Amino acid sequence: MSSPAIALLLTGHELMTGDTVDSNSALIARHLLSQGILVAEKCTVGDDPEALRTAITRLSQDHRAIIINGGLGPTDDDLTASIVADLCAAPLVEHPKARAHVEAWCERRRIRANPANMKQAWLPTGATLIDNPVGSAVGFALTLNNCLLLTTPGVPSELAAMLPAVADSLTATLGGAPAYIRRVQTFGVGESTIQQWAKELGDQWPTTVNLGFRAGMPQLELKLTVAHAHEVPDQTRAYELLEAKFGDHILGEGETQLAQVVQDALRRQRKTLTTAESCTGGLIASMITREPGSSTVFGTGFVTYANEAKQSLLAVSHQVLEESGAVSEAVVRQMVLGALDQSGADIGVAVSGIAGPDGGTEDKPVGTVWLAWGTREDLRAHCAQIPGSRTLFQQLVAAVALDLIRRHLLGLPALPHYFTRQAQ
Amino acid sequence: MSSPAIALLLTGHELMTGDTVDSNSALIARHLLSQGILVAEKCTVGDDPEALRTAITRLSQDHRAIIINGGLGPTDDDLTASIVADLCAAPLVEHPKARAHVEAWCERRRIRANPANMKQAWLPTGATLIDNPVGSAVGFALTLNNCLLLTTPGVPSELAAMLPAVADSLTATLGGAPAYIRRVQTFGVGESTIQQWAKELGDQWPTTVNLGFRAGMPQLELKLTVAHAHEVPDQTRAYELLEAKFGDHILGEGETQLAQVVQDALRRQRKTLTTAESCTGGLIASMITREPGSSTVFGTGFVTYANEAKQSLLAVSHQVLEESGAVSEAVVRQMVLGALDQSGADIGVAVSGIAGPDGGTEDKPVGTVWLAWGTREDLRAHCAQIPGSRTLFQQLVAAVALDLIRRHLLGLPALPHYFTRQAQ
Repeated sequence: MSSPAIALLLTGHELMTGDTVDSNSALIARHLLSQGILVAEKCTVGDDPEALRTAITRLSQDHRAIIINGGLGPTDDDLTASIVADLCAAPLVEHPKARAHVEAWCERRRIRANPANMKQAWLPTGATLIDNPVGSAVGFALTLNNCLLLTTPGVPSELAAMLPAVADSLTATLGGAPAYIRRVQTFGVGESTIQQWAKELGDQWPTTVNLGFRAGMPQLELKLTVAHAHEVPDQTRAYELLEAKFGDHILGEGETQLAQVVQDALRRQRKTLTTAESCTGGLIASMITREPGSSTVFGTGFVTYANEAKQSLLAVSHQVLEESGAVSEAVVRQMVLGALDQSGADIGVAVSGIAGPDGGTEDKPVGTVWLAWGTREDLRAHCAQIPGSRTLFQQLVAAVALDLIRRHLLGLPALPHYFTRQAQ
Repeated sequence: MSSPAIALLLTGHELMTGDTVDSNSALIARHLLSQGILVAEKCTVGDDPEALRTAITRLSQDHRAIIINGGLGPTDDDLTASIVADLCAAPLVEHPKARAHVEAWCERRRIRANPANMKQAWLPTGATLIDNPVGSAVGFALTLNNCLLLTTPGVPSELAAMLPAVADSLTATLGGAPAYIRRVQTFGVGESTIQQWAKELGDQWPTTVNLGFRAGMPQLELKLTVAHAHEVPDQTRAYELLEAKFGDHILGEGETQLAQVVQDALRRQRKTLTTAESCTGGLIASMITREPGSSTVFGTGFVTYANEAKQSLLAVSHQVLEESGAVSEAVVRQMVLGALDQSGADIGVAVSGIAGPDGGTEDKPVGTVWLAWGTREDLRAHCAQIPGSRTLFQQLVAAVALDLIRRHLLGLPALPHYFTRQAQ
């Protein structure tokens, strides 16, 4: 690719001690790559003035632009602005727009700005402000040795909100051509399964289309990339092949989230959902309500962690609990029916399983989960084994629960690949 | 600190595109720091011969040792060995021990070694092998410009297994002494507030103790570090100063999590908790149940996102909802009482707020939340402004709810700094 290349400089003591895993650089690199800009080198140093000075000087000689991430916070070990000011011979001055930004930020929090807050309004003379829509620290742009310096805060949510403006600054200076990337969000089918399938396709898969993967949790993102505009029809063909084979596992494109798809389907069908959760302890409900607009499709959720709660809130019968145990088909079926009764919702999902680390038996080891989902008239149940840590188990079970609802709503095959594969 | 410092060089195309988040460098840094070795600089480049050559040359001039991670695999874009061989004028030769290692590895997998596998046995002349107890790629040590080069594979599990040997090589060459780090988990007081306080303390704070921060979500970790064993009493004194000032914000040491502290306190007091959540949609319950052992202290949670659910499940009165609105003191108080009634739990917490992006009014803007917590006899309520994105709002409100319960259980000041600061 003939895309322009830039450098990243990450700063922070916590990155050098290993206390923090750096996810910011991946966030930046992905965003820039979608704009046709490559990261050629990443350099990371601690909050040490000499190391920062040396790194900025060297990178500015080797690259046409540097994104500096971190060191914009309110405290004394946040050195970025003062060191850039030094190197560029552009003394720190209080920047009126930055001052207004910090004051508004404090105002929204109903706190009085202290000196540490106000430090963030001091930027090198002549710096151009990069707005931070989320946090108190603004970024700024300045030139050193004919190299564009762009500073960004280390807080991931703030960085993410500023990336579009950063990319605009870069493409304005460097040029850049978008690569043609089509991102497809999937759930419930593994990277190795898809790769094996693509291999078996052989010639049918267009050679111009690169198939890439990014494992999210719980989703898997596929990326179909072509280098040139005239190859976009190949990309479409590749997508169609993918859809023909794994269509029921495709959630959507771009950033589409599982819970969003469920919400949208519910809204289109004017239906409401309720949840009855044992082993996931509220996680399914919280995934649904994390997405804006959930109040139109979700009103009530039950966290019935204890058997008594299953009985008193959801009218699960004592006898069934005694005979079948809490992790059983009979119990999850009663849980859904009870939740539908109590909430008046149209569709329900219930889960009961053994998250571990304790509580497993030979019959029902840690990782066993029963799920039931659907309506009073069309209620299904399934048992699965989902190994992994307690947290991973809860995340996967919650995602599976949402996926089963999605399949129910969209009339897709009821059981996904990850279940039918276990059943084989 | 007088600890020796080294450089890390990470290589791999996937690190430059952002497809992979680099967790290896944190793994290496943490392990080495426990041996008293600091990472002074991290540099990351793609699988590009020229970039690798430049980076190794430069780092070898600036540092006494470099750990190179990645590029030892069987494929053609794994370049580390051949480039180090070039730079050190030490041509690749088949290393008998490395050959035996690869053959044994294939044997265990019952596969025949192919040329790609055998490539991994070719190391620079004179290199000392670093054993890989897990994978096929061995590492090696060699010297360039009086700088020790240590190569390691990119697969995290293999890297982890090799780190003790890598650290031994380094300490043998550089010396090194363990640092004395005391990690303190806090919630509800900001980095800038603590730093301001430490500054005001002046001479009282022992100069031998370095105060570091790591912003987690929602916790803030403080690190009190001293370089030598005889300074540990200073560290204790610093901790006591911290405790005297911010004791009610300290959750514990090491990896202590807020939900864990709440669980432990409930268990010690043989009490149970219930939750009644509107705007957090199940997140409080899921934070509690994420920690193992939650079933002894938490049996029932209510997700009453809709007003109808607040009425039918928690007996919130229609009149109060009409008069005060869902986000009000009267409603959260009724929510706790209803949840206590329905669940039979000893202590309850309820939240109702405006998570946004829509639903705010001039009176109650997005970010407004009412919380109520305690027992039937000792019930408190408070209103706060918690701005930020929807997700951030939910995470902070859930954490605040847990913190209020913690304060109630432990007899700490009822309102934390983040509330009293707003009230000023």
